Amino acid sequence: MTALYDVAALGNAIVDVIASASDDFLEQEGLVKGSMMLVDAGQSAALYGRMGAGVETSGGSAGNTIAGVASLGGRGAFVGKVANDTLGDVYAHDMAAIGANFHGGRLVGGAGTGRCMINVTPDGQRTMCTYLGAATELAPADVDPKVIEGAAITYFEGYLFDPEEARRAFAKAAGLARAAGRTIALSVSDSFVVHRHRAALLGFIAAEVDVLFANEDEITALTGEASFADAVEAIRDKVKIAALTCGAKGSVVVAGETTHQIDADHVEKVVDTTGAGDQYAAGFLHALARGRPLDQCGRLGGLAAGEVIGHFGPRPQVSLKDLAARAGL
Amino acid sequence: MTALYDVAALGNAIVDVIASASDDFLEQEGLVKGSMMLVDAGQSAALYGRMGAGVETSGGSAGNTIAGVASLGGRGAFVGKVANDTLGDVYAHDMAAIGANFHGGRLVGGAGTGRCMINVTPDGQRTMCTYLGAATELAPADVDPKVIEGAAITYFEGYLFDPEEARRAFAKAAGLARAAGRTIALSVSDSFVVHRHRAALLGFIAAEVDVLFANEDEITALTGEASFADAVEAIRDKVKIAALTCGAKGSVVVAGETTHQIDADHVEKVVDTTGAGDQYAAGFLHALARGRPLDQCGRLGGLAAGEVIGHFGPRPQVSLKDLAARAGL
Repeated sequence: MTALYDVAALGNAIVDVIASASDDFLEQEGLVKGSMMLVDAGQSAALYGRMGAGVETSGGSAGNTIAGVASLGGRGAFVGKVANDTLGDVYAHDMAAIGANFHGGRLVGGAGTGRCMINVTPDGQRTMCTYLGAATELAPADVDPKVIEGAAITYFEGYLFDPEEARRAFAKAAGLARAAGRTIALSVSDSFVVHRHRAALLGFIAAEVDVLFANEDEITALTGEASFADAVEAIRDKVKIAALTCGAKGSVVVAGETTHQIDADHVEKVVDTTGAGDQYAAGFLHALARGRPLDQCGRLGGLAAGEVIGHFGPRPQVSLKDLAARAGL
Repeated sequence: MTALYDVAALGNAIVDVIASASDDFLEQEGLVKGSMMLVDAGQSAALYGRMGAGVETSGGSAGNTIAGVASLGGRGAFVGKVANDTLGDVYAHDMAAIGANFHGGRLVGGAGTGRCMINVTPDGQRTMCTYLGAATELAPADVDPKVIEGAAITYFEGYLFDPEEARRAFAKAAGLARAAGRTIALSVSDSFVVHRHRAALLGFIAAEVDVLFANEDEITALTGEASFADAVEAIRDKVKIAALTCGAKGSVVVAGETTHQIDADHVEKVVDTTGAGDQYAAGFLHALARGRPLDQCGRLGGLAAGEVIGHFGPRPQVSLKDLAARAGL
């Protein structure tokens, strides 16, 4: 069946608030560099009050991936929930502006649109505190069967394992995708997700997932192995394809007996690593949806990740399609 | 009398929405590249709907200048009006985060916080459409005499000549500054301001202004001269100090018989010229408030402008104080 979309993603619809911060600031706030922590409305307001002057931009892990797919010339759909407020307007506008279909709609009378406060230290690392707000209200009813059945790949962000209703939306979509014979991909999102939901994640991967995205921390936490090399071997027979990112060292794509080692793209200066994993997934999934071999999927992922870490913000600033064409991909 | 503030500024409190755009987009929208146009709520919503995905950040011409003064280690105060909404929260937060005093407060139950839609073309030029919203409600009552009397320099953005009540706030502040023996500075802001209010501007300059900021288009429009060279001579006896910016050619500072020609700072790649004039004013006024000679004022202005055009967004991304120290200023 021809696909309406290359990738349909379910994720937390989140507006990012990005500010520069010192290492001292992270320490004063008790934040672990590179991590993502969930905060409530009160903690969110307090942290925001102490943060530096910021820039706001539509984000959310899976939303960023859909922006990447669109930038590559692919057709993307995003399922997520915002509130009926200014930031919700911004989110919906940005999705429409990149040509992605936005499903899930507005929450009226509840929490505000979710926001992620991202403190970027001089080394380019981002430390995130997320107030999910309206995003947690994503519910099974928001999942339109036609969108999932019409997508070559349905992609889930692991962060959705946190809110209960969203996890049910997640289960519904996975069932629909499986029944339609489509491909299912999952990003582990964060090692804290693994710590909170390891058994559920492993069960879901075994039952439903074709393509798994994880970084070094996440895959070692998920497999319970001490080293990355051991984790690679441990995941090999648990999922059809595992695309494992290793920061500046590139990525490793494992599929059955085969292993592809893919170098990272050269980046002049790493400004802000926000969105690196999301854009890697965008490049990989776009190529996979178009039937490209796995090493090319990994290379396109690396190219998209390389673009996004060269500037502030989690979404591409130039056409990834043009960038890919120039790189012969 | 010792000054509480180096610079107090009255301006439109505006959140910028910055997006990349093609030259074709400007043409379709009937926008003149490099200009600033005022739009109403309906036009604002329609244009936003057609614009690309954006980044939101606190802006407003005089607000940007105060951010620059703070980045240089100076003490700034800003008088402007936002609404009691999310963008108003963002604006107030960003002012507090840079250490500037924010006066004027929240408008309850009226228009939303003002926003400026900035379309940046590949040549780095910005074309702006501003919906003033709550900003136009700035009124004389918002001007706290202690703030103006305590500032070495009171700085006005010419855009304030548009809304009537704001122009009255403007007149009140000028009177207070004059009575306290303080310095008054004005930025012409835009050649359209000159076209709309030429006589009023010339009268205000003659009566109140010590330091005038304008670019080539603005000063020729204001003086009615055909060439920049003639405009320089025409303005010489109309104001104590005129600081005239000429883009990549640098700036010319005119004061009585003397003329200082100041080269522009070398910039690797011009990304977005938004905020260049605002930051020039920041550097110039900061140095002037500290009693520095005029050529150094111009050089500090050029340094601050050079920083801001190297990235997206109208406010400094690094400490201008450190940058100035490294440049020996």
